[in-house]
Amino acid sequence: MSAVIAQAITEATAAFRGDPLNARATFKSESQLTNGFRSEVRIREHSLTVDEPTRIGGTNDGPTPVELVLAALGTCQEITYRAFATALDIPLEHVAVTVEGDIDFRGFFAIDPKVRPGFDAIRVTVNLTSSASAAEQARLREMVNRHCPVLDMLTRPVPVTFP
Amino acid sequence: MSAVIAQAITEATAAFRGDPLNARATFKSESQLTNGFRSEVRIREHSLTVDEPTRIGGTNDGPTPVELVLAALGTCQEITYRAFATALDIPLEHVAVTVEGDIDFRGFFAIDPKVRPGFDAIRVTVNLTSSASAAEQARLREMVNRHCPVLDMLTRPVPVTFP
Repeated sequence: MSAVIAQAITEATAAFRGDPLNARATFKSESQLTNGFRSEVRIREHSLTVDEPTRIGGTNDGPTPVELVLAALGTCQEITYRAFATALDIPLEHVAVTVEGDIDFRGFFAIDPKVRPGFDAIRVTVNLTSSASAAEQARLREMVNRHCPVLDMLTRPVPVTFP
Repeated sequence: MSAVIAQAITEATAAFRGDPLNARATFKSESQLTNGFRSEVRIREHSLTVDEPTRIGGTNDGPTPVELVLAALGTCQEITYRAFATALDIPLEHVAVTVEGDIDFRGFFAIDPKVRPGFDAIRVTVNLTSSASAAEQARLREMVNRHCPVLDMLTRPVPVTFP
């Protein structure tokens, strides 16, 4: 599997260096509310159900949108660890990530305009199993946190428009 | 369903006004790479598979992390529309959202340090079916975009720590 990933990274890097336009891509999610707070999502050939817990009026048929943000960050960290471990030839046997987010619902519920509606703190716990030295693992971590796409989007503003 | 949501909103708002500590909550996602770029996610009693497409070395068993971010934003918009339409008593028959994100992979692949690894632009298309007046719909949209948790987290930096 690592050989497949290494080859894919090598080929993609060559294509992107050859013509930066090759590196541009657009991703899409389409969704709609079906009942109450329940939403059905289509992403390419994949589908996903998002919902709210029953205590706030949902039917709990799936994770909430803010939980999806935590899952996106955790899995993006993992995939970025795998990619950079492969590219840097640093041994990495296993990676698991737990992400926690703290929210104050007075923001969403419009009770206090000074309270933000999203998470006011996110904590990421990365568990690596690796025979690499501590220095190599530190170098890997530094590269991952500089290049993890979802970490970038949560820590630096993304221009969002409603065309 | 609207009556259930209205009652849930009323009860939650009263509880949060009564004691702001009632409004604090922590959410959690736990995940681990299982094979290559494939990750299995647990969120409460829900599970989810995240993966990368085959062309970059994945097995395409689920959406990618950056696509999850788009899904989180689209579904959060929908749920926030339903919640505020209910709270403001504005008719809303249906809501569907398409979210697109543009990325330049030279960021993730560490080809150009000036290129951010995440989306450099996100476009949100909201399709409402509503018998409300244009003014009511504009008021609803304004309230949604001020209180949508995922929109907040993408447009304003979230403190992310690695304790």
